[in-house]
Amino acid sequence: MLITIYLIAITAEAMSGALAAGRRNMDIFGVAVIAFVTALGGGTIRDMVLGHFPIGWTQHPDYIYLVISAGLLTTVLARYMHHLKMVFLVLDALGLIAFSLIGCEVALGMGYPTVVVIMAGMITGIFGGVLRDVLCNQVPVVFRHELYASVSLAVCILYLVLRKFGVPTEANTLISFAAGLTLRLLAIWRGWKLPTFSYQKRWE
Amino acid sequence: MLITIYLIAITAEAMSGALAAGRRNMDIFGVAVIAFVTALGGGTIRDMVLGHFPIGWTQHPDYIYLVISAGLLTTVLARYMHHLKMVFLVLDALGLIAFSLIGCEVALGMGYPTVVVIMAGMITGIFGGVLRDVLCNQVPVVFRHELYASVSLAVCILYLVLRKFGVPTEANTLISFAAGLTLRLLAIWRGWKLPTFSYQKRWE
Amino acid sequence: MLITIYLIAITAEAMSGALAAGRRNMDIFGVAVIAFVTALGGGTIRDMVLGHFPIGWTQHPDYIYLVISAGLLTTVLARYMHHLKMVFLVLDALGLIAFSLIGCEVALGMGYPTVVVIMAGMITGIFGGVLRDVLCNQVPVVFRHELYASVSLAVCILYLVLRKFGVPTEANTLISFAAGLTLRLLAIWRGWKLPTFSYQKRWE
Repeated sequence: MLITIYLIAITAEAMSGALAAGRRNMDIFGVAVIAFVTALGGGTIRDMVLGHFPIGWTQHPDYIYLVISAGLLTTVLARYMHHLKMVFLVLDALGLIAFSLIGCEVALGMGYPTVVVIMAGMITGIFGGVLRDVLCNQVPVVFRHELYASVSLAVCILYLVLRKFGVPTEANTLISFAAGLTLRLLAIWRGWKLPTFSYQKRWE
Repeated sequence: MLITIYLIAITAEAMSGALAAGRRNMDIFGVAVIAFVTALGGGTIRDMVLGHFPIGWTQHPDYIYLVISAGLLTTVLARYMHHLKMVFLVLDALGLIAFSLIGCEVALGMGYPTVVVIMAGMITGIFGGVLRDVLCNQVPVVFRHELYASVSLAVCILYLVLRKFGVPTEANTLISFAAGLTLRLLAIWRGWKLPTFSYQKRWE
Repeated sequence: MLITIYLIAITAEAMSGALAAGRRNMDIFGVAVIAFVTALGGGTIRDMVLGHFPIGWTQHPDYIYLVISAGLLTTVLARYMHHLKMVFLVLDALGLIAFSLIGCEVALGMGYPTVVVIMAGMITGIFGGVLRDVLCNQVPVVFRHELYASVSLAVCILYLVLRKFGVPTEANTLISFAAGLTLRLLAIWRGWKLPTFSYQKRWE
């Protein structure tokens, strides 16, 4: 099940990347790169930080074709996509959670300390979007938006706590998805945000 | 021969990096860093993604001295360089092709799947310029320009197809250079571009 | 002693990152990420480039807690911090030197050539700040400021020369700190800068 959700998730992320590329008037090569980076960049950075080689997608050419196709298809479908806004928000939330759990599992399998496991989950969940925004020359939206990274953090912690208490992986995964999706959709619906830190003083 | 072209290529790339740094009024340290990153950053990212350690330039101190010298020399020669525009475009095209073929060879030697081999060639060819543009705080020009990344893609595919058909490496390299250079110069001369994707709708 | 200075240094760097995040009105999650990246990003890039796994902070969860706490605390203390400007400049200079020496030691321990050892020191010293500026969508200040990267370079070279002449590590470390701190504070006091390269011509 996690694999199915993962494939849906990287497709949705690739499409979000393609739209961001379109906002910068990129050519279709740029669209393909940004789609790829948005969908698979978080896992790439996680693997590079953990020293986990070979990196996931290099062993799954089908993932590469999937995200590039999704990105290019988006250039055709873009005009209809805003009608599906709610669908995308749900898919994106599912993706965030799937990425987070997969990231935790990779770091757990390599024996890293708990806080690094949580960070591996969060890197997988959010750094695709960070790379997308850096390549599109804007401040990463994930550092300013409604609860998003926090959902990843909450899901990672919940998953590890339940795991500690011996909850079987399948049940744990289901509970994490239910809780994470609820939290994310509530945050969007109610506009929950983290407190913001504004500091305008220049010292020089 | 590939080595000679490679050395010329990293020199040309370092000079292009130095000019970009000059457009941002950087100091000579910034010039050296951007020159280095433009020339050797693509190969660095390729090696980090493929898990190919030690990274190439760490074993070739002479490459490091070469690109930093080229970058610093550019601050002196810059005023005369636009007379050599055509020379630079040819050197840059040769570099793009040399980088692409070297990237393919590295990934082939590590047994990666074909699509990853092509991506390794393209990362080597274009990500130096992407890093340069990110550090200079602009949207990477390679995602918007006339055919450039596409030339890298075409060269990688041609090289792998000819290799599959048993063409010896020397002949294959020559053919790839001839085809790639022709395609790139035609693209510049005729202004060939990929179709652009523009998307201005905001969903929020 | 180096460890104590290192802990003070990453705290100071984390605070500088948090202030930069505040200038972009980030939420407290963004503040934590930028604080982390500013403090530990230089060492992370060094380890990824050298193939030095596991990366330092993954084995020291306490470092992670320290820099994130320092970043979050800064959101509360920010209004008082500009009174401590001189303290911060000194801590930042100590950090720059400590990072540089640690980076050299890591590369020396892996048997890299001398110029790579120097680059490892400089990457550790300055790339946290580069990553901070890229994520905050601005041209890295280290490429334009008064002598900063140059201090790292000078310290690395001095340290390696003294090491070559057989100066014991403790004495060498002390001398490097004294010399580096003096150079950095003189540079700030007198406004020493490297020459700048400005190039405005567009070739297209």
